Amino acid sequence: MANSKYEYVKSFELKDNLLPQTWMVLRIDGCHFHKFSQAHDFEKPNDECALRLMNECAVDMLMEFPDMVFAYGVSDEYSFVLKRTSTFYQRRASKIVSLTVSFFSSTYVMKWSKFFPHKELQYPPSFDGRVVCYPSSSILRDYLAWRQVDCHINNQYNTCFWMLVKSGKSPKDAQNRLKGTQTQDKNELLFQEFGINYNTLPEIFRKGSCVLRKEVEEIVKHSEAGDPVRRPRKKIVVQHCDIIGNKFWDEHSYLLSD
Amino acid sequence: MANSKYEYVKSFELKDNLLPQTWMVLRIDGCHFHKFSQAHDFEKPNDECALRLMNECAVDMLMEFPDMVFAYGVSDEYSFVLKRTSTFYQRRASKIVSLTVSFFSSTYVMKWSKFFPHKELQYPPSFDGRVVCYPSSSILRDYLAWRQVDCHINNQYNTCFWMLVKSGKSPKDAQNRLKGTQTQDKNELLFQEFGINYNTLPEIFRKGSCVLRKEVEEIVKHSEAGDPVRRPRKKIVVQHCDIIGNKFWDEHSYLLSD
Amino acid sequence: MANSKYEYVKSFELKDNLLPQTWMVLRIDGCHFHKFSQAHDFEKPNDECALRLMNECAVDMLMEFPDMVFAYGVSDEYSFVLKRTSTFYQRRASKIVSLTVSFFSSTYVMKWSKFFPHKELQYPPSFDGRVVCYPSSSILRDYLAWRQVDCHINNQYNTCFWMLVKSGKSPKDAQNRLKGTQTQDKNELLFQEFGINYNTLPEIFRKGSCVLRKEVEEIVKHSEAGDPVRRPRKKIVVQHCDIIGNKFWDEHSYLLSD
Amino acid sequence: MANSKYEYVKSFELKDNLLPQTWMVLRIDGCHFHKFSQAHDFEKPNDECALRLMNECAVDMLMEFPDMVFAYGVSDEYSFVLKRTSTFYQRRASKIVSLTVSFFSSTYVMKWSKFFPHKELQYPPSFDGRVVCYPSSSILRDYLAWRQVDCHINNQYNTCFWMLVKSGKSPKDAQNRLKGTQTQDKNELLFQEFGINYNTLPEIFRKGSCVLRKEVEEIVKHSEAGDPVRRPRKKIVVQHCDIIGNKFWDEHSYLLSD
Repeated sequence: MANSKYEYVKSFELKDNLLPQTWMVLRIDGCHFHKFSQAHDFEKPNDECALRLMNECAVDMLMEFPDMVFAYGVSDEYSFVLKRTSTFYQRRASKIVSLTVSFFSSTYVMKWSKFFPHKELQYPPSFDGRVVCYPSSSILRDYLAWRQVDCHINNQYNTCFWMLVKSGKSPKDAQNRLKGTQTQDKNELLFQEFGINYNTLPEIFRKGSCVLRKEVEEIVKHSEAGDPVRRPRKKIVVQHCDIIGNKFWDEHSYLLSD
Repeated sequence: MANSKYEYVKSFELKDNLLPQTWMVLRIDGCHFHKFSQAHDFEKPNDECALRLMNECAVDMLMEFPDMVFAYGVSDEYSFVLKRTSTFYQRRASKIVSLTVSFFSSTYVMKWSKFFPHKELQYPPSFDGRVVCYPSSSILRDYLAWRQVDCHINNQYNTCFWMLVKSGKSPKDAQNRLKGTQTQDKNELLFQEFGINYNTLPEIFRKGSCVLRKEVEEIVKHSEAGDPVRRPRKKIVVQHCDIIGNKFWDEHSYLLSD
Repeated sequence: MANSKYEYVKSFELKDNLLPQTWMVLRIDGCHFHKFSQAHDFEKPNDECALRLMNECAVDMLMEFPDMVFAYGVSDEYSFVLKRTSTFYQRRASKIVSLTVSFFSSTYVMKWSKFFPHKELQYPPSFDGRVVCYPSSSILRDYLAWRQVDCHINNQYNTCFWMLVKSGKSPKDAQNRLKGTQTQDKNELLFQEFGINYNTLPEIFRKGSCVLRKEVEEIVKHSEAGDPVRRPRKKIVVQHCDIIGNKFWDEHSYLLSD
Repeated sequence: MANSKYEYVKSFELKDNLLPQTWMVLRIDGCHFHKFSQAHDFEKPNDECALRLMNECAVDMLMEFPDMVFAYGVSDEYSFVLKRTSTFYQRRASKIVSLTVSFFSSTYVMKWSKFFPHKELQYPPSFDGRVVCYPSSSILRDYLAWRQVDCHINNQYNTCFWMLVKSGKSPKDAQNRLKGTQTQDKNELLFQEFGINYNTLPEIFRKGSCVLRKEVEEIVKHSEAGDPVRRPRKKIVVQHCDIIGNKFWDEHSYLLSD
């Protein structure tokens, strides 16, 4: 019983390879996470445990997929940068998107109880994903800047909104109070009404999270005399810092070089 | 701080909509499941618990995504048929692939302990996925027949292989013994050497699993006289049957009609 | 001097094969033909010579490309239907579009003087093209109906517009006169003001042009007794008829059968 | 008679936009030009009139399409570079390929008699085309180098082949004589057997043709004293020179800058 009679159906599988020598960015987004965050009683405007779970999944991604050189996450969204020269799965879009989103989702569920030991996962979370190509490092940096600016805008708005709601305003009233306000106005509001200096809030909320490989010195053993012996090692770290300006990229120039 | 300066990066997100009015088939495949099945000590040639876990995930898929009208699974692979008229996520390939594979993966991890109460999940499983369009019902049926023929070929081979190995042959010797054998030869081998009638092995192994919505009569209440009152209801069921011939499709013609 | 050092650039050529077993329709459109028709003083609203040139190019297309089974043209636009089973250039979109549009353009220029013996071609005409896949014969027929309805709507409007302009109205006034009118109103206008019965205008204007292969009896020789001997032969013909209803397709059912 | 009932067919027209901010190269190739060159009795190994006709068509392309910044041609093939920032037809592949190939084909036919005043065009020539994206200037330069190396390899081979054939060898024998020869061997052969110094053959044959805009000083009028008044003007020129090394690109750095 050979299978040749039906094998012609394989011809319907069209190629979806992505342009070589471009930066590929996989962006993952929580699906219906507004509902998910309510079902799991996430703290508002930011739930630090939920963010740390996302970050740990991202760290595991870089561990699992060596072609990922950098990741940036905010809220229920994460962007993973695959290096320009990557030939991961011959750059086939479906393969890359499905495998990575699948791994991320599995990891998220497996690690849930580590970050929420007292909350049971109510139902399977799902994430959508897409891969987008950027032809140059400078456009890639603009992409990442776009996400970080978005983080700032949303976080500032949400911080105000939830402070107003927690202080007794209805969601409707809170919305109206914020309509048309600028960055400066929102900072004023937080300070005047709630004594909050926005710029001192945790960086993980204001800046989002970066995941990258970094050379660190680690103690690998002790000499006979008892002195620690250090060796450089690549380690995956999480940082919360500005990635819009040049400073970060100057200090980590190896990330975008080939 | 408006985001307009960087928003141009959105123009790099190219459209990947699939041709309307074609059957879309999402095929999910376990990634490195050879290693995964060893790490979790799956029974050979078929682990019924692992298959039942896959089937339950598939049932949950049809529950979650109403546009899925049929699914066929074998081993660590599952094909989901989306109806021809589906406009799920405007038929965008990345969205469909990522979301569904993500949901399947999450469900697989969440349900693991139900099917393997005494085995801990060692590491996050991952699945790849792709969506392929088939322009007519008859080609779609050929696709499904292709998968079921494959199921048969592989299962027959694996059944022989593992019987030989379990009876003391080395994997190498087992392979050589089977080289060049036809369907009939393998059936003979099983019968002569091991007293096994291949056709009496469980259908879940020989035919794979079909998942579909079916109208069933269910007792909804009892009359005053104590008689059961039945109502027709759509229910998602799992079956193990031939889907190559016409019989199944004649009996379930609603599956492929619009 | 081998070329291997640079051959990697071939990897940037991505595949663009179209879904097998679907009807492919190549639609060609004159580029800036409003200007082209003015530069060549085309008669308004329809220039029969220009239409007959388009039709002859379409006939040559069916002669050159055997996979084209039908063509429908109106004004400076032509749609060519490639049969569902076609594997022309492995169904690569760029190859199909470029080659056919190129051949059409060359033919148009070469045949120009046959249809316009007293007008010189002022500059090279150009056509754009695209290939679209339709998964079923009934959707293909809807596509062709769409073009013929468009032909009707445009021709009726243009006939009115140019009658008004030729009778002394300014283009602006003609436009205003027609704003909001329905089919029936336009027919009335033509009849009342210009004594024209729209339905008696040439079918080539009202119905557009169909190009197809047809079995015809042709006299191939004469018998000794002087009687003509006829043999059936496939011939490419041009017709102007309704392709929205069933009649044409019933009479030419071989066109859409495989 | 509105057209809304059928307009749904437009949804089958899928997007094919190309990645922004990449160099787009349109490569045009004569279709079956082996036969075409025989039918029109082209001189072998190179027909200068045919090449000059190709070049003039290329010049007209740069005139017609301002986004084309450079073109390189050899034999019946031409590559046109569209600038990285081009948004020509929103970078839709079909539109770009069809329109440009159509214009090239029309121009080729219209200009034929200027270059072949005594030869009639036997039948409509056709060209195929494709657009490929290159993400960086250095890869684009590698692409162009690839074409010029190909020009060199083919021309050297063809020059030898046709000298052997013209001197009385059969095509078969000529082929065998050249099998396995290197660049140096072929140069020797030409020199020893035919007294030809390959490097003194016309550059149009050895280097192919470049088409580009160049700033030139042109006499625009004469002063009252009769002195010529020169003004800088962008002019489209044809050159035959090396484009593999840096020299050309250093001297014309504006071509690849944005």
